[in-house]
Amino acid sequence: MNFMRTIFWDGCVKLIDQTKLPDKLEILECKKVEDLVRAIKNLSIRGAPALEAAGAYGIALSAFEKDFDNVEDLKEHIRQTANILSSTRPTAVNLFYGIERTLKKALQGESIEKIRQLALKEAEKIADEDVERNKTMGSYGAKLIEDGDTILTICNTGRLATVDWGTALGVIRSAIEEGKNVRVVVCETRPLNQGSRLTAWELIQDGIEVTLITDNMAGIVMQKGMVDKVFVGADRIVKDAVFNKIGTYTLAILAREHKIPFYVVAPLTTFDWNKRAKDIEIEERDKDELIYCHVKCKQSLIAPKDVEVFNPAFDATPINYVSAIVTEKGIIFPPYDENVPKYLHNI
Amino acid sequence: MNFMRTIFWDGCVKLIDQTKLPDKLEILECKKVEDLVRAIKNLSIRGAPALEAAGAYGIALSAFEKDFDNVEDLKEHIRQTANILSSTRPTAVNLFYGIERTLKKALQGESIEKIRQLALKEAEKIADEDVERNKTMGSYGAKLIEDGDTILTICNTGRLATVDWGTALGVIRSAIEEGKNVRVVVCETRPLNQGSRLTAWELIQDGIEVTLITDNMAGIVMQKGMVDKVFVGADRIVKDAVFNKIGTYTLAILAREHKIPFYVVAPLTTFDWNKRAKDIEIEERDKDELIYCHVKCKQSLIAPKDVEVFNPAFDATPINYVSAIVTEKGIIFPPYDENVPKYLHNI
Repeated sequence: MNFMRTIFWDGCVKLIDQTKLPDKLEILECKKVEDLVRAIKNLSIRGAPALEAAGAYGIALSAFEKDFDNVEDLKEHIRQTANILSSTRPTAVNLFYGIERTLKKALQGESIEKIRQLALKEAEKIADEDVERNKTMGSYGAKLIEDGDTILTICNTGRLATVDWGTALGVIRSAIEEGKNVRVVVCETRPLNQGSRLTAWELIQDGIEVTLITDNMAGIVMQKGMVDKVFVGADRIVKDAVFNKIGTYTLAILAREHKIPFYVVAPLTTFDWNKRAKDIEIEERDKDELIYCHVKCKQSLIAPKDVEVFNPAFDATPINYVSAIVTEKGIIFPPYDENVPKYLHNI
Repeated sequence: MNFMRTIFWDGCVKLIDQTKLPDKLEILECKKVEDLVRAIKNLSIRGAPALEAAGAYGIALSAFEKDFDNVEDLKEHIRQTANILSSTRPTAVNLFYGIERTLKKALQGESIEKIRQLALKEAEKIADEDVERNKTMGSYGAKLIEDGDTILTICNTGRLATVDWGTALGVIRSAIEEGKNVRVVVCETRPLNQGSRLTAWELIQDGIEVTLITDNMAGIVMQKGMVDKVFVGADRIVKDAVFNKIGTYTLAILAREHKIPFYVVAPLTTFDWNKRAKDIEIEERDKDELIYCHVKCKQSLIAPKDVEVFNPAFDATPINYVSAIVTEKGIIFPPYDENVPKYLHNI
């Protein structure tokens, strides 16, 4: 089955509104940067690599969204846009990368027309590169999957988390494309259920066998031998930890306890190798996500309104729990201190 | 604040309808055994000790629910009721205990009036004993809690899981009653959110400080040192494992990894010491629990309708992960093989 891309340019920025899935497949049009900012904040688009493209397209959009009197006004406007876009999600480093790269390119232009052209071309290039590198990661990562494997995953690391194909789910797609028989067990991924809403939906569209569990069933499925490997994505990889969707750390501990390999799949732009876990701010999200079963539907209260909550969007898995990291340049094995810099060298 | 009991006799069986919480506090009247069977199956009443009382009151209700021509008809009817009630939930052993004990007592009667009297008296006794033993467990267990502790818990083990006071939450209540400052972190407990709907609600009613997290945040709160001890209930304790709400096994592994004590609180009727984990059937529940965010509200689909699910209601935590088991006769420490039989001896 052929899908449209998760985010693309069509006179403005268009994206699949992921808050509407699995109920309906709806395209959101962002004609202004403020529309895109809202879309990022409310998770209509999410997933680190998709955010890289969103940041890039956001810069392009800011160059097109209105008329400018002169080049300096335009440059000032896209610089401001870069700041606004950067503050939408604090944890995903790829977002900043997409913004910075497109901004830098655009600022080389010397006319309004040229800047617009450069920004859009760079954004399209970033989006194309994402698809390409996901397929490359897929073929590297597929080597880690054997015929008949059942893979446990969390959140959504598929087409919808990227421009197309996916990171961790991309590896599974590549393994299946090679003719391997692969099944997926997906954690629903509370509080926003990206696992049940997006991953289960995506895999069913592709005819890939998937079993849905709640997050607290990850222990029992490993205990019962129902899982051979764990594959997850990443929002940021620092020297001592992998930041990813809340719940990833728990899966890593469970995997080690059950002697199940735990793999991370992420493009090299996810690495922030000069930082350590303690330097990274973990985004804490709204209480409504925990007290209503579906944030959109404020009828079904699943907790008392006045309860105190702790709602971090990500956690930090110590890097020594990770069996290997799949990137577009190859599979990085421990010791990471020694091996990661070799791969980052020619990013 | 004084609460009514979770289940009580008032001309018929009445119980707090827990599927309505935290939205409203509603009493469900069960005038026929079939009403009670439905209430147990759809979890209007749940929690192992509350089910013990429900089983007992169910036998009493069957003696009152209609007219009988003779004593033998009545005896036959309550025997049949015992079978029907026993098949409602396969995992909680306390349910069978409440049924069997009341049935045995009732069958001693030689007139319709006498049988009714004996059954109701025994059921009331079982309910009273539950409250008493919970308070006794509370004072034993409170010794394990220090002033200033933050306790992580799962599901609901409070007033609503028992006739009153609670098992694991009862221990916390007792510690607070003794003047200790205790905070609670509760996992929402998917898929039916007994943690967020019932435990958070109950603790707020009592003015006990509580923070709600999703189940997949248990790792991060331990990693951040936000939790001093874990206290959970149990549905059945066999020679090599503790059966409890799905997710308990994951918490036990996380607790060991973070060197946090992991305590089980359960009355002695929870022990089924002649059995092993492999002998116990784990109830698997309906798919709807995973694909709708709130089973009652079928508007909000959180997964594709055609997804395959695995939905076990319980898991088995190997008993060697348990730091101690709090009972109404005292705290049982390892080695359990040696120590548990001493406590069961005079049950």
